[in-house]
Amino acid sequence: MTTIEMRERAEEVIARCRKLATFSEDQVGTRRTFLSAPMRDCHREIARWMEPLGAVVRIDAVGNLRATYPGAQAGAAKLLIGSHLDTVPNSGAYDGVLGVMLAISLLEALHGRRLPFGIEVVGFSEEEGVRFGVPFIGSRALVGRLDAEVLKVQDSQGISLQKAIEDFGLNPAEISQADLNVEYFGCIEFHIEQGPVLEELRLPLASVDSIAGQSRLEFTFHGRSNHAGTTPMHVRRDALAAAAEWTTAVENCARSVPDLVATVGMIEAKPGATNVIAGETRATLDVRHGSDEIRTRVVKDLVERAQEIAGRRGLTSEWETLLEQPAVAMDPFLVSEIERAIAKTGATPHRMVSGAGHDAMILAEKVPASMIFLRTPGGISHDPAESVAVEDVEKAIECGLHLLDQLAASRIVRERM
Amino acid sequence: MTTIEMRERAEEVIARCRKLATFSEDQVGTRRTFLSAPMRDCHREIARWMEPLGAVVRIDAVGNLRATYPGAQAGAAKLLIGSHLDTVPNSGAYDGVLGVMLAISLLEALHGRRLPFGIEVVGFSEEEGVRFGVPFIGSRALVGRLDAEVLKVQDSQGISLQKAIEDFGLNPAEISQADLNVEYFGCIEFHIEQGPVLEELRLPLASVDSIAGQSRLEFTFHGRSNHAGTTPMHVRRDALAAAAEWTTAVENCARSVPDLVATVGMIEAKPGATNVIAGETRATLDVRHGSDEIRTRVVKDLVERAQEIAGRRGLTSEWETLLEQPAVAMDPFLVSEIERAIAKTGATPHRMVSGAGHDAMILAEKVPASMIFLRTPGGISHDPAESVAVEDVEKAIECGLHLLDQLAASRIVRERM
Repeated sequence: MTTIEMRERAEEVIARCRKLATFSEDQVGTRRTFLSAPMRDCHREIARWMEPLGAVVRIDAVGNLRATYPGAQAGAAKLLIGSHLDTVPNSGAYDGVLGVMLAISLLEALHGRRLPFGIEVVGFSEEEGVRFGVPFIGSRALVGRLDAEVLKVQDSQGISLQKAIEDFGLNPAEISQADLNVEYFGCIEFHIEQGPVLEELRLPLASVDSIAGQSRLEFTFHGRSNHAGTTPMHVRRDALAAAAEWTTAVENCARSVPDLVATVGMIEAKPGATNVIAGETRATLDVRHGSDEIRTRVVKDLVERAQEIAGRRGLTSEWETLLEQPAVAMDPFLVSEIERAIAKTGATPHRMVSGAGHDAMILAEKVPASMIFLRTPGGISHDPAESVAVEDVEKAIECGLHLLDQLAASRIVRERM
Repeated sequence: MTTIEMRERAEEVIARCRKLATFSEDQVGTRRTFLSAPMRDCHREIARWMEPLGAVVRIDAVGNLRATYPGAQAGAAKLLIGSHLDTVPNSGAYDGVLGVMLAISLLEALHGRRLPFGIEVVGFSEEEGVRFGVPFIGSRALVGRLDAEVLKVQDSQGISLQKAIEDFGLNPAEISQADLNVEYFGCIEFHIEQGPVLEELRLPLASVDSIAGQSRLEFTFHGRSNHAGTTPMHVRRDALAAAAEWTTAVENCARSVPDLVATVGMIEAKPGATNVIAGETRATLDVRHGSDEIRTRVVKDLVERAQEIAGRRGLTSEWETLLEQPAVAMDPFLVSEIERAIAKTGATPHRMVSGAGHDAMILAEKVPASMIFLRTPGGISHDPAESVAVEDVEKAIECGLHLLDQLAASRIVRERM
């Protein structure tokens, strides 16, 4: 493929992302949640791009777009390439969508050439968790993790997941058929990094070797509410002061452990008046690391730290675990093939841990999976200012084509098929 | 007066406070805001107790209850003894009301004896600022500080102060007559301490020699909102972490300056999600001290500290002054007479700064004023658990009677009259 062709493909990928961003539930800004009306426009548009390639496009029972590009032989195992089509409110154009557009671009660049394996492009219907507060509905269906309980969950309008699926013209009874029911030997997800690491390193692409484990907790400090004017400092049991001291301890801890991130993102003091000492303060904690051992130890330390701070100040503290999600390793074979492919584009390969969860993390339960991150200018995502550089998209297409050729020639892939 | 009589008086003072607490706007708990219907019940009840004493009871144009007990000679200057009758929501029975009940009890204990001066018992209609967000409406009217602008202020129902006064059957045009239009030589306010100082010192009473000045500010830290999972610690501009560091600095500063109190009572992080680094955090500051110089210097230091913390972290900070109220000195003559009166009860006199504002602070603009604090069990006020010990109320009555005798015999009072 010539340099000019490559640039045109990259520009088209970006143009398509921007086109899909116009399919929104909101008049201003992009919001395209699970099974919303603009999702149909996405599906129609994508089918229009893919059907000329000889791909068979269908929508599965949870609304995932699934387009199969057959392999050289009928019934060959498939490589899944995909990402999600839903967005957060007031989103950018690339989070999720870019991964689907890159997959389409790779098929186009094959110019009808068939590989020893089939390729299934998947546009997941739900990853962000906006509508039902439950993320990864699309990929969870593929690994058989959408049970009857989840179908009862309601959105803010009181519509159940079951009803939403029916309203979209789909049949919830067929969800089990959405399960990965044919043989996939691997899964690749292109996604923007959504962080500043590649920009800092001046690199266009990275391979992802694991998805960080996450702990989310909520802490409550119980002190004694009192008059801010009449209560001397030494007799106070100020729940906000305790939470502030602990928040600083969380930050110091995270700074001292390599590759750890820890965040206090929400804080609420009660009664929350200028002239009243807070009697109670709630604060959340989000801790992530590629190593579950390190993460678990840090969470334990920070719980103890909260207790120590509360105890020293004559307060009590309690905490609740909201989420405890182990790290997910990506497939070592795919990670190293991605690294080789990145190197062939002339870029320096870089392995990193993804701090955010992705569909590939869910699929990894059943299929060898890995991800390719694209540099994210300013680390900005979930924002209309989210962007990608056309040069980086070119590198991603080039990397993807090298990867397909490598996999087509790989003995390991033949064994896996 | 015998010991038994004194105990009975103290018990009656407490019983009357509890009786008035039943006059509430709420079914459960006491809430009696400015010019509310239950305030009429208060007035009726108080008039029933005071008229037998030969006091003339009237309601002035802003709803203050004013009861005059004449002196030995017609037209003699008067001593004002009073506090407020309004309450916060879910209040206790003693904040404000106790000061009025003690004044009535003192008149009763005179058994009709006339002093060289008259006594005006005032039950202020509004001190807490609950209904209109403007405190001290009752006492402000007496010092001529209720102008036409304030009359336009609306409550949460959209009723103006002007209209509320009319609805209560009063005439706003007569407010200027509520002004201290005859000669008062002094003003005394009994009030619960609302803090833990006297309890810690094991003392029943204190004289108040000044009302602390107050500064109230709101700070905003502007950082950069970002993904809690994908943003490494060293590139964050976490507005909540900055506010937490500053909150700890506020506490450390207050602990290092004698008699200073400084409070961060409200904090809000935006967007305020578990998995998002806060891009903006607002926090309030309340600083109080008896010395305006010390308070002003501390506020300046804490503003600079916020700037330093923000700057070091790559954030910006801004602040707004919400309130700047100088300290108010109480009248030295009255303070020392109160100390003498306390000593005569057998208690150790103690002088203190009031960290809270009171009606006496407003009246001090025009009349020599001082306050007598009663020990507050647990420092608890603005709460149904608010209480006073009957022994402390006895001491307060005894102190008040000594004080009246001292003032009646005082050359300085004669000169002031």
